[in-house]
Amino acid sequence: MTTKKRQIKLGAFLMQTGHHIAGWRHPQAQADAGVNFRHYVQLAQKAEAAKFDAVFLADGVAVRSENLAALSRTARSDQFEPLTLLSALAAVTERIGLIATASTSYHEPYNLARKFASLDQISGGRAGWNLVTSATNAEALNFSRTAQFAHADRYRRAQEFHDVVAGLWDSWEDDAFVRDPSQGIYLDTDKLHTLNHKGPHFQVKGPLNVARSPQGRPVVVQAGASEDGRELAARTAEVIFVAHQTFDEAKSFYADIKARAQHHGRNADDVKIMPGIFPVVGRTQEEADAKFEQLQALIDPVVGLSLLAGISGEVDLSAYPVDGPLPELPPTQGPQSRQRLLIDLARRDGLSIRQLYLKIAGARGHQQVVGTPQTIADQLQQWFEEGGADGFNIMGPWFPGGLDDFIELVVPELRRRGLFRTEYEGRTLREHLGLERPQHPAALRRLQSQLPQKIAA
Amino acid sequence: MTTKKRQIKLGAFLMQTGHHIAGWRHPQAQADAGVNFRHYVQLAQKAEAAKFDAVFLADGVAVRSENLAALSRTARSDQFEPLTLLSALAAVTERIGLIATASTSYHEPYNLARKFASLDQISGGRAGWNLVTSATNAEALNFSRTAQFAHADRYRRAQEFHDVVAGLWDSWEDDAFVRDPSQGIYLDTDKLHTLNHKGPHFQVKGPLNVARSPQGRPVVVQAGASEDGRELAARTAEVIFVAHQTFDEAKSFYADIKARAQHHGRNADDVKIMPGIFPVVGRTQEEADAKFEQLQALIDPVVGLSLLAGISGEVDLSAYPVDGPLPELPPTQGPQSRQRLLIDLARRDGLSIRQLYLKIAGARGHQQVVGTPQTIADQLQQWFEEGGADGFNIMGPWFPGGLDDFIELVVPELRRRGLFRTEYEGRTLREHLGLERPQHPAALRRLQSQLPQKIAA
Repeated sequence: MTTKKRQIKLGAFLMQTGHHIAGWRHPQAQADAGVNFRHYVQLAQKAEAAKFDAVFLADGVAVRSENLAALSRTARSDQFEPLTLLSALAAVTERIGLIATASTSYHEPYNLARKFASLDQISGGRAGWNLVTSATNAEALNFSRTAQFAHADRYRRAQEFHDVVAGLWDSWEDDAFVRDPSQGIYLDTDKLHTLNHKGPHFQVKGPLNVARSPQGRPVVVQAGASEDGRELAARTAEVIFVAHQTFDEAKSFYADIKARAQHHGRNADDVKIMPGIFPVVGRTQEEADAKFEQLQALIDPVVGLSLLAGISGEVDLSAYPVDGPLPELPPTQGPQSRQRLLIDLARRDGLSIRQLYLKIAGARGHQQVVGTPQTIADQLQQWFEEGGADGFNIMGPWFPGGLDDFIELVVPELRRRGLFRTEYEGRTLREHLGLERPQHPAALRRLQSQLPQKIAA
Repeated sequence: MTTKKRQIKLGAFLMQTGHHIAGWRHPQAQADAGVNFRHYVQLAQKAEAAKFDAVFLADGVAVRSENLAALSRTARSDQFEPLTLLSALAAVTERIGLIATASTSYHEPYNLARKFASLDQISGGRAGWNLVTSATNAEALNFSRTAQFAHADRYRRAQEFHDVVAGLWDSWEDDAFVRDPSQGIYLDTDKLHTLNHKGPHFQVKGPLNVARSPQGRPVVVQAGASEDGRELAARTAEVIFVAHQTFDEAKSFYADIKARAQHHGRNADDVKIMPGIFPVVGRTQEEADAKFEQLQALIDPVVGLSLLAGISGEVDLSAYPVDGPLPELPPTQGPQSRQRLLIDLARRDGLSIRQLYLKIAGARGHQQVVGTPQTIADQLQQWFEEGGADGFNIMGPWFPGGLDDFIELVVPELRRRGLFRTEYEGRTLREHLGLERPQHPAALRRLQSQLPQKIAA
């Protein structure tokens, strides 16, 4: 058996009109993308034709409506619920993985376990769940709470939520459903495993009313980069989406997560690390710079300032001069890793408030690469080959053109270097990513208990 | 304008292998239907080609696993989650309505409002929500409860849940999203209406992060027939699915609901009543009888007895002689209307326990019609023309054949009588059903407040 060369994994991170905050104003953008199903069909089918591992959808369960002036100038308030959208996309795609974000703070584990198991069945083994804890008060207020859960509480709940979902996915062994009409036996109750979970946050009896799905379990994805987030991810995640500004950060995170995973008894290769990349691609550097400047010039200052609201804790940034430095900020109860990253960025480069929001208007803290297919491929190759990444989540600046550029210009360059597939090797998301299909725990135990007898016989 | 003749509405009630409890054992049944997406695609596309108003999916959030012998012989334990399935079907159909059941006891209103609004967007205005309260302890145990909510509590919660969902669907006026890239204005905040709901069960601020959907609001469907259920339905439902055994029952229910709706300030025609019909169709009566007997003979007695478990309250029916009469039963905390209906049926016809389960093995309390296209059409026509129904929810005994028979034999007969459409009149589920698109309350108020000025001017 020949060892196949390790290749880059690619996710297409779809987001309404695009990842750049002013992307919707681009003359060729699909301004109604948030509720335009045909738009998403086209994007998903293009990503599949390019052999991407997966499409990825972020999510939040609120409209950030405290700043009406910014709200009215931002294209983030109308969007499909991700599982609904991915189920529909499952019916019009054949191979590409389908990763939806869903919150552990505002769902019941039985419902989410069912939905992802159903999506895995419908799509023939292409479902992934991006587990998030939700980090804004606006979301809490839509779910009969007066404020969000504290950071550590969210992660304790998330850990238990994950374990319940994983347990429910193993309610039935793979061969539990025999469906023998002549004998009248539909299922083998010896292969039914009732969860009977009783924990501090959830009591869930089970079993799940969906057969074990094609992937055994849908792929579990996470994005948290705080201490709590890293621990949860190292124990449970199979893919990690993360935001880095520099190669050194990426390398240090990569080494840390792989070590933590091994500490939890997993193989380093059981966790794929895929930083977000916001690419602006030109045939020349000048063309790329011009494309980027075109988008930056479309940012309304009201919108720019609002981008920093999520990281500012209790501080009202609009009270500070926009061309002055970022003030001291108290720790947020929101996503701490993100706050840290942006403060570090501002301090390191001595950025004013305005310069900081211009800096994150596209990539929101992820790596922004503005260049030619060659320079972008160079950077991806370095991160991939020198211990910074197993793949990348591609964040098109605007849609459809921003993704088209990456597919038409960068993907061929990666292929010339042997770094990206020309055809899918398998059919499931696990197969694309090189993740093993988890054996059912009871089937595994049965196999192990039979071992001595077989040797004796 | 000519008044169009009133016609029968038809739903295709899809359920895994079929509605007859032994349907999965039919030699031509699709035994793995519960997790076979292609199977559902074929059924939905056939129903659409036949111009049905909608496909309909029931739901429960548990496996009834207390009786393992019955469980192992029943094809009800693996099924797609309905919203996931209907979203996927939305992508491969064009016109047919898509009605999914979802529980008000085990979801959060913000999540359900989003999912149905998303489905309505994806499908171009074809979504319907069958609001149920869930009525088994098995379900409660999957959601961190030790027992289900009491009957009246469930309905109080359901009423508030409905009002929150409807309010969230009206978060944005129809023309709120202007999406003007040149001015940089994406939405008009004057057309944003924050719900700010504070009730005994839910506190939900809003707004919803989905634009107002093509139907204004997805169609609201209900099935409760208890006093609490009727009141909720009369106030809020636009379609009612119901189980009747006799024309007299149907007529009395129909008159009662239409009167209650009017009492709540609605038009009688704003509520469509569609009883379930379990049809076994033969070209002759003998052929129909033989088809039915073929299915009845496949019922395992263990399974038959288990059918009565849901209605028996705290009484263990297996302790009574199977060929003796039904004992006295205390009121259940489950679906009371269903318990009443089955007890009445047994008493009226003097049925033994075995005769009762054989009687409900197919239709589960719904009208069972075993006959020729003519006799079945006669019955539907009578109910429709004499005040018993606005349409019917067709429950194929097994799939695909049980639905095929109805489509190929009964639908043409209904058309010959002018009772069913030959082509869709519109594009949305509301248009199929003849239900008005609800105006946005704020738009309506604005219109009303402008009226005097217009007259003055």
